[in-house]
Amino acid sequence: MMSTTLHDTLVAMAVEARKASQVLSRWSAEQRSAALTSMAEAMRQESASIIAANAKDLAEGKKTGIEKASLDRLELTRARFDAMCNGLDEIAALPDVVGGVLDTIQRPNGLSIKKVRVPIGVIGIIYESRPNVTADAASLCIKSANAVILRGGSESFHSNRAIVAAMQKGGERAGLPAAAVQLIETTDRSAVRELVQLEGLVDLVIPRGGESLIRAVSEMARVPVIKHYKGVCHTFVDATADLQNAIEICDNAKCQRPGVCNAMETLLVHQDIAPTFLPRMAERFREKGVVLHGDPASVSLVPGMKEATEEDWYTEYLDLILSVRIVPDLSEAIRHINHYGSHHSDAILTKSDANAEMFLDEVDSATVYVNASTRFTDGFEFGMGAEMGISTDKIHARGPMGLAELTTYKYVIHGTGQVRP
Amino acid sequence: MMSTTLHDTLVAMAVEARKASQVLSRWSAEQRSAALTSMAEAMRQESASIIAANAKDLAEGKKTGIEKASLDRLELTRARFDAMCNGLDEIAALPDVVGGVLDTIQRPNGLSIKKVRVPIGVIGIIYESRPNVTADAASLCIKSANAVILRGGSESFHSNRAIVAAMQKGGERAGLPAAAVQLIETTDRSAVRELVQLEGLVDLVIPRGGESLIRAVSEMARVPVIKHYKGVCHTFVDATADLQNAIEICDNAKCQRPGVCNAMETLLVHQDIAPTFLPRMAERFREKGVVLHGDPASVSLVPGMKEATEEDWYTEYLDLILSVRIVPDLSEAIRHINHYGSHHSDAILTKSDANAEMFLDEVDSATVYVNASTRFTDGFEFGMGAEMGISTDKIHARGPMGLAELTTYKYVIHGTGQVRP
Repeated sequence: MMSTTLHDTLVAMAVEARKASQVLSRWSAEQRSAALTSMAEAMRQESASIIAANAKDLAEGKKTGIEKASLDRLELTRARFDAMCNGLDEIAALPDVVGGVLDTIQRPNGLSIKKVRVPIGVIGIIYESRPNVTADAASLCIKSANAVILRGGSESFHSNRAIVAAMQKGGERAGLPAAAVQLIETTDRSAVRELVQLEGLVDLVIPRGGESLIRAVSEMARVPVIKHYKGVCHTFVDATADLQNAIEICDNAKCQRPGVCNAMETLLVHQDIAPTFLPRMAERFREKGVVLHGDPASVSLVPGMKEATEEDWYTEYLDLILSVRIVPDLSEAIRHINHYGSHHSDAILTKSDANAEMFLDEVDSATVYVNASTRFTDGFEFGMGAEMGISTDKIHARGPMGLAELTTYKYVIHGTGQVRP
Repeated sequence: MMSTTLHDTLVAMAVEARKASQVLSRWSAEQRSAALTSMAEAMRQESASIIAANAKDLAEGKKTGIEKASLDRLELTRARFDAMCNGLDEIAALPDVVGGVLDTIQRPNGLSIKKVRVPIGVIGIIYESRPNVTADAASLCIKSANAVILRGGSESFHSNRAIVAAMQKGGERAGLPAAAVQLIETTDRSAVRELVQLEGLVDLVIPRGGESLIRAVSEMARVPVIKHYKGVCHTFVDATADLQNAIEICDNAKCQRPGVCNAMETLLVHQDIAPTFLPRMAERFREKGVVLHGDPASVSLVPGMKEATEEDWYTEYLDLILSVRIVPDLSEAIRHINHYGSHHSDAILTKSDANAEMFLDEVDSATVYVNASTRFTDGFEFGMGAEMGISTDKIHARGPMGLAELTTYKYVIHGTGQVRP
């Protein structure tokens, strides 16, 4: 079952990562930022070797016949390469999150308790083929004073190795141990299992990728996992919605970038506004090339609409397809969202403050909106300055994960000889 | 492998729990407190049946020959019963944590983002034989607006069932669905596996009990788990420690209640103070009946001390036994603690501010102390007013878990028609 050698390799990596994390946790914010700047510099110096490594991945990908969309994600164009390097400088320039005092408790017995923000320690990141995730995820971990163990998709193996080598070189010039950023180099698939079972050695695992990857990691893991599952996002057009506003918001939520997790997948319409709103909305969607799957009431209002199946209500299309349902009232809209949704991002469009409040309170999602597009669920749009992903978990981090979500806390207690009576 | 019937039963329980959690999340703080008060009242009214059920458990326990310490933990004496009922009233009276605004972000595009504290949803609690945990854990969940599914030890089955029945009766009088507090009634051990794999139906599982229980749960779980592992707590007596203070603090940390997780298990002594401190300290421990396991240097200072094995440094004795080691300096003390400890509670006794700072920064534990006993790591001692346990995890909750740690957050966003450009 388990390869002892592989297990030993991963344990050794994690032990070195822990040591590096201890160095990072002693470093000042300035030192960590300087290491990131040095890493960006080293990546620029090594641009030829990184782009050559990427060309090798692309050639192998073409040979093994991976699909065109994957090849596109894999490719490090010059513009993407520059953006990746600039990303490190941008993360270096963000305000520091480590060491902040979250709470202070002064006890009657004189104990002074401070709750202080500290790094998590060693973080494992498991991701698919985009090589820029390597630099992106690693730099977020370094900025937040965590060591990182990366496991990228095998299609981007050479690219990832070249990027990590450059980051390590740049980091070492700034005094950072190479083990602060490590890549699992074996293509043995059981390395993932080994990594996510290193209880006590790895503090957190974040899988970034498709649902099947995340589910596999979550089933094997013994260390905590923060999951970024799909986004089945809803917009509910209430009876009192501003019609023109609603058309623009729904258009944006569905069409502005349909392939991402915060795009709308299901449109719910209050029955009172449906006869005026839905035909106009459907006309706009027709112009944009959106295929509609509707419930019988919607189909009767918009001839030619395809009838939706039960499966449609659960589906994240990531494409110009939209499920549409007419609901009798707000309560049924909320029930639908909590039942079929993925607890990611959901919006109500309404002029009623009472309905807005009820929706915001009762929809059990990471982000809930009134009168805005769900497309704003994003670390940058929230002003976090960076993003590790969008957590669909409720534990530790929910919604956009920025630098603060890559930290934990400890209680620091000053006494003057107190003993417990 | 899996019993479909058992699986279906647990799914049905979780679905009902979700509905109850939705009711709770709509309730005001006053309504939740009133339900707890009503539960306490019902438990008092049902005292005869609860105590009779406990007597049945005790009789069965004696018959099956469970050990004396377990029988003692199992027994609901009149005093314990009263304390359990009063505990519900005390939790009812605590300040509310749900609905608080944790952060407000005003974006340049006019979006107003609020990060609001909300309940987690459905929490599973798996615990061993003490029946008062049933009322304790359930009331913390209700106070924080979560529904709870309880799985107690089979030895306390009748007690748990009687307590939950009374809580449900009291809750229903206050309008709370019975499914807000449910007990898994089957003694089939695979119920635990089923419970911790209900991804999407159960939001969090907290095992409370011995290491083997926690490890088993963590290995089987697919839902997030917050682990309360053992406490291998250290006190480091630095070269400049106040001698009398150090003796009182170490005595307290070891002897005041040796069977709990925040008691000291290893004493580290700076070599410069060891010749004056250690013999006096050993004399005090001898008076208190503490057996010492020392490294060779300690043994040579305190004749008759048993020699410690490598295993000793990892051991949580929960008894009047203590490992003792003389270290050359602060760095080695920190290294020892981070290597052998359980990241629970560790203290430095020193007059040096610089050494205190270094210890507090570099010891990677949930709670770190200067000049105080580790025995203070406790929700009540921290002023939380209640405690679900002491998390040794770093994710979501670290150290004492109170009501706030039983919540998560959501982002509530008010717009005026914003779309993403």
